[in-house]
Amino acid sequence: MRQAIHDLEASKIREVANAGMGRDDVLAFWFGESDEVTPEVVRQAAIESLQKGETFYAHNLGLPELREAIARYTSSLHPAVDAARIAVTSGGVSALMLAVQALVDAGDEVVAVTPVWPNLVAQPAIMGATVRTVPLEPVGGEWTLNLDTLRAAITPRTKLLIVNAPNNPTGWTLTRAEQEAILAHCRDTGTWILADEVYERLYFEPTAKACAPSFLDVSVPDDRLVVAHSFSKSFLMTGWRLGWLVMPPAMVEGMGKLIEFNTSCTSVFTQRAGIAAIEHGPDITPRVVAHLKACRDVLVPLLAEIPGVQVVAAKGGMYAFFKLDGFDDSLAVAKRLVTEAGLGLAPGNAFAPEAQGWLRWCFASKDPQRLVEGVARLKTWLQKNRPQ
Amino acid sequence: MRQAIHDLEASKIREVANAGMGRDDVLAFWFGESDEVTPEVVRQAAIESLQKGETFYAHNLGLPELREAIARYTSSLHPAVDAARIAVTSGGVSALMLAVQALVDAGDEVVAVTPVWPNLVAQPAIMGATVRTVPLEPVGGEWTLNLDTLRAAITPRTKLLIVNAPNNPTGWTLTRAEQEAILAHCRDTGTWILADEVYERLYFEPTAKACAPSFLDVSVPDDRLVVAHSFSKSFLMTGWRLGWLVMPPAMVEGMGKLIEFNTSCTSVFTQRAGIAAIEHGPDITPRVVAHLKACRDVLVPLLAEIPGVQVVAAKGGMYAFFKLDGFDDSLAVAKRLVTEAGLGLAPGNAFAPEAQGWLRWCFASKDPQRLVEGVARLKTWLQKNRPQ
Repeated sequence: MRQAIHDLEASKIREVANAGMGRDDVLAFWFGESDEVTPEVVRQAAIESLQKGETFYAHNLGLPELREAIARYTSSLHPAVDAARIAVTSGGVSALMLAVQALVDAGDEVVAVTPVWPNLVAQPAIMGATVRTVPLEPVGGEWTLNLDTLRAAITPRTKLLIVNAPNNPTGWTLTRAEQEAILAHCRDTGTWILADEVYERLYFEPTAKACAPSFLDVSVPDDRLVVAHSFSKSFLMTGWRLGWLVMPPAMVEGMGKLIEFNTSCTSVFTQRAGIAAIEHGPDITPRVVAHLKACRDVLVPLLAEIPGVQVVAAKGGMYAFFKLDGFDDSLAVAKRLVTEAGLGLAPGNAFAPEAQGWLRWCFASKDPQRLVEGVARLKTWLQKNRPQ
Repeated sequence: MRQAIHDLEASKIREVANAGMGRDDVLAFWFGESDEVTPEVVRQAAIESLQKGETFYAHNLGLPELREAIARYTSSLHPAVDAARIAVTSGGVSALMLAVQALVDAGDEVVAVTPVWPNLVAQPAIMGATVRTVPLEPVGGEWTLNLDTLRAAITPRTKLLIVNAPNNPTGWTLTRAEQEAILAHCRDTGTWILADEVYERLYFEPTAKACAPSFLDVSVPDDRLVVAHSFSKSFLMTGWRLGWLVMPPAMVEGMGKLIEFNTSCTSVFTQRAGIAAIEHGPDITPRVVAHLKACRDVLVPLLAEIPGVQVVAAKGGMYAFFKLDGFDDSLAVAKRLVTEAGLGLAPGNAFAPEAQGWLRWCFASKDPQRLVEGVARLKTWLQKNRPQ
């Protein structure tokens, strides 16, 4: 096997989850997934498609009616996007991998803003690229971007900038002004931007369209910009593996080939579920977001009360990312919390070395009382185990 | 976009299909897909999973119960394979792409036996590898392997050999002796073998286990061998995107990471359908194979009767691959057949330059009468258009 694949870091989140294997008393908040089943109306659309016998190959780029639906949905949140610029993908992660395959040759230089979920830096490494990271900086529990540092890191030798905002794990979100500044700089350097905006609807600040700022708001179709999306978060569809890309018109033909050679297509019944999700989105997404905000507002104040915890309420996403003073090894403490407290959190250093000492708590919990109970377990454990 | 992606050849099959766009009077045999819906019992398993709410993330390598089922199925056809060596993938093409990502660095040399379906040579090109092709040689309508030529092409600099047998499009199949010889040579040169054996059950020669020869029959678990499989053909599940890999134990951990970074997992309801397919396979696959053999035995004799057609009955697969004397440009003749005769075939040069002048006819037709009608259209067209 290639050395590059050996060298890919195994998931530290999974390492923590493995420590809880076979224990059913663990309150697990380690994965980025709601514990709520996909809405019945969405599942029913897939069921009807299966009953009708829609079990054949589909277009590489997706069903025309789903591409149209995604284009209408996107255009309702951002400047108009033509369906021809949409590709349906087998999940958000597939969307991102396809974009990286389209853009990154072996030896190319890629810049990524971190902390970030590990897939975003692994994908260019699989293609043989060199990844430079630009860390956000924690200021009183809040991770912030130093725009000058980022601009200085992006040079004409930078083929691709990868940025995930609203960010997993930190909740950090780009402002429109920052997106404009980054785009202007990347236009100068000829650098592509791959924007992972899958959390755009899980945004808790008041806005006209209930949506985080997007690079689509500040760009033109021919910009070197690819935006990756997923049905997973806004429509409670994690396990379906359904996502999409918005790309420049000149990339569409190549993307169709890449989908052919990677997955060929997404199953029609899954795409029918996607059409139903968008159709019923006005009922689904606001409810999901309101519930997540309520979850956040249960969890974060309770965490903030704990001595030695640094945390701020995330503007977007579904995570509380907090520093636990006195515990410098996130992975070790996360494993101890599983085995000693029955509390499952993700270690910060799964997302970047600079997040060592931090922990990620996914607050997408159908029953917010689970969050209260989780905090109680954390406090009890800290009382016994806090370093003197 | 990368030059390597621009340079990937667009599908000539799709170019022919596009020539028939909007015409509902075309008898289409261009794609490698049966026109029969997935059996009801398989669809029902997915429906029940959806009704139960199995809409969450799954293990990267697949549900343990599906991996076990695949291992039992594989072990029933070949020497015993442990479930730990199985990875569930989002289709056979994803299985192949993952294997190529695991094995091929940019600049590596890959050898592929051709003619072959285009994905197999495109995948290493996406990874930046150099692909050398070793053409089969047509002898009286039958494509045959020159083993010495193949062995001479595989040197210690060859990282990977890619071979698809039973072969799409030619129907060519490796013998056990050839597999032994190729494996022995690749052990000497340190070359990995990626064997696309998705047609192993669509095999029409009498054998003890109703299965084509497989590299799994002649290898040991630690050999540098990855075998790619699909539910598409043997279980009538093309549109589901469900496949698997059999790999050496040392590759499993890396493959789990690659699946995480490419697609994360296959949806649980799709995997439940896979479990049902294997469970009911003894009812499904023999019926599929018997029907395909009947289709082949309707089509091939009719084709062979046509003056200027060179064709032999394929030992395996679902294609008649035939030479049409007097028509040197497959793509041009395939397009003319669509528009002038209402007959949809795939051009031979979609599969390799040496198959220029050949045409592929997928005989997986629920109603064999469609094949008879197709041949009639071909004959009528030839009467008017045969070069003098």
